[in-house]
Amino acid sequence: MILKFHQMEKTKLNQWQMTSVDEDFELIEIDMPRITEDEAIIEIAGCGVCHTDLSFWHYGVHTKHELPLTLGHEISGKVVEGPDPLKGKNVIIPAVLPCGECDICNNDRSNICQNQLMPGNDFHGGFASHIKVPHKYLCPVPDEVLKKYSLAQLAVVADAISTPYQVIEKSELVPGDFAIVIGVGGVGIYGALIAKIKGAKVLAIDISDDKLQKVKENGIEATLNSNELSFKEIKTSVREIAKELGVSGFGWKIFDFSGTKSGQELGFGLITFTSTLSIVGFTMDKVEVRLSNLMAFDAKLIGTWGCKPELYPDLVDLIRKGQLEIGQFVETMPMSDINQVFRDTLGNKFNKRSVLVPDFLHDN
Amino acid sequence: MILKFHQMEKTKLNQWQMTSVDEDFELIEIDMPRITEDEAIIEIAGCGVCHTDLSFWHYGVHTKHELPLTLGHEISGKVVEGPDPLKGKNVIIPAVLPCGECDICNNDRSNICQNQLMPGNDFHGGFASHIKVPHKYLCPVPDEVLKKYSLAQLAVVADAISTPYQVIEKSELVPGDFAIVIGVGGVGIYGALIAKIKGAKVLAIDISDDKLQKVKENGIEATLNSNELSFKEIKTSVREIAKELGVSGFGWKIFDFSGTKSGQELGFGLITFTSTLSIVGFTMDKVEVRLSNLMAFDAKLIGTWGCKPELYPDLVDLIRKGQLEIGQFVETMPMSDINQVFRDTLGNKFNKRSVLVPDFLHDN
Repeated sequence: MILKFHQMEKTKLNQWQMTSVDEDFELIEIDMPRITEDEAIIEIAGCGVCHTDLSFWHYGVHTKHELPLTLGHEISGKVVEGPDPLKGKNVIIPAVLPCGECDICNNDRSNICQNQLMPGNDFHGGFASHIKVPHKYLCPVPDEVLKKYSLAQLAVVADAISTPYQVIEKSELVPGDFAIVIGVGGVGIYGALIAKIKGAKVLAIDISDDKLQKVKENGIEATLNSNELSFKEIKTSVREIAKELGVSGFGWKIFDFSGTKSGQELGFGLITFTSTLSIVGFTMDKVEVRLSNLMAFDAKLIGTWGCKPELYPDLVDLIRKGQLEIGQFVETMPMSDINQVFRDTLGNKFNKRSVLVPDFLHDN
Repeated sequence: MILKFHQMEKTKLNQWQMTSVDEDFELIEIDMPRITEDEAIIEIAGCGVCHTDLSFWHYGVHTKHELPLTLGHEISGKVVEGPDPLKGKNVIIPAVLPCGECDICNNDRSNICQNQLMPGNDFHGGFASHIKVPHKYLCPVPDEVLKKYSLAQLAVVADAISTPYQVIEKSELVPGDFAIVIGVGGVGIYGALIAKIKGAKVLAIDISDDKLQKVKENGIEATLNSNELSFKEIKTSVREIAKELGVSGFGWKIFDFSGTKSGQELGFGLITFTSTLSIVGFTMDKVEVRLSNLMAFDAKLIGTWGCKPELYPDLVDLIRKGQLEIGQFVETMPMSDINQVFRDTLGNKFNKRSVLVPDFLHDN
């Protein structure tokens, strides 16, 4: 009760703001914002560091909201202000918050709603003590899940896990399918695991033995290090692996999570009859491809952005049921280390997803 | 009765065979083949000249059956030998004849069945007096349809019309959608018309005023001659047309029927949020595209090959009901003109689909 009283009374919040490209984030304190009836204030439990954050901070991609801006869109926390039924609830904030009312939303494509708001891009994000968000699509976290994972760890659901979850859904993967996952970093690894949960036989392709070792330890059937292999050698290996796994030579579900030119080229090159290649990672690089192959193979290319908030509860349920384990892929760190963590993420020093946990002084 | 007796007695058939690239087709006479219980002999009423035939005859694409080979896969005719219930029936021979038993067929993708047989590619095709085919997927032509069109004219259903029909189906086009059809030649024009029948507002883009004039006369709402326009100018025009037609700025259904690099590039460039670009025409040319745009737009690229025989009856029904008019897009010509017709098709001399009608001497 004392704690609650203390929270209610809080009149300030802290943020780590990005001021310009590659510069240290700046710690600031501002007044706790007022909310409308459509909004809530979340006390942040954790906020993951995503490649998209690096795009803004290092690669010069422009945020929609002008700088200075608090980045971070992979957020979990507790509702401390908002409608009564929500207050006190532990929630995950979807990385993409649609309006829920436009044609696109009504057409079941809310993940790409053009009125959508993304924390840490359209408004101040999760590298902060608190955040003000529209409350419509907050995803409640059942207490049962919190017996297994801290609320901070569950931040990764908001992007690193939800994005691949939607991808697998959209690919129309069915049990027995052959899923080829290119790039099993912080997002791709979940793609591989969710494909497996959905009944596919999975081949993970990466250029890092460490990452491949990790997916192997998590029960992924087959791995292939494509480093130093020609495309022809890779293709031959993939065919052999398909045979060993006893899957069809057609209808492969291919996923590029690498967001690299070479990953996309590989994915496109592996397309066979009735295959579906899903483009998940982003790169500005163009690739030179024979689009008519799609016709000759009756194949599909799917681009998929974010995740419909409507899918979040199903995904949280996979975690509740223990089908999807997340603990070992997440590392929580003090938010005050944000500058070092961003630099180390850029330097590929982490094998796990980093989730920053608020440790502002006035929280102590 | 005499005629029927005469047909039954026929022991020879004639074919125009391709012997090598760019060479005149050679008229030959061979014994009428024997059939198994899975096969039928069709007396050919007409066989359309398709771009695929030119690929074999002029552009050096290899046929699966070795040369010499009778080309032609857009065929209508009458069953003169085969199971009793089929005998005497007027039929369209699907351009792609699947096995109907493999995983791909059982997965509702029979159009790309790997055991499929294509007349004029896997076996002797339709530029002949008769053809032997598996009878499983022959599409009967109701008498009502023959009051409007000759059986020869209906040959175009087998490819020029069925391919765009499947494309429109696969694009998940719904009434009110904005359909952008790039290339309204012999196949694309049907794409435009079928999209309209299915309730879309249609924009036809081509570099030929004649072709655009023709789609306009057939009730297509909007046309754009892209010749001499920059991509930016085209995009601006398309946006204006979308506004004039009162369609959404998103979810465009784009179709490239041109089978050209520039057509595919244009189609890819017109992709906006939740759009679907269908690749129908074939070109060996590669295009340089930013595949990640598909992710950013949550968009799709669909390649589509041929048409499932299962869809043919629906399509014939559109013609029966008078929703789809075909007469003015087809020109029948004597099959003995085959060499000139191929050369003129290559020289883009025809605005209509040419259907060759057998006129072998012993038919007289």
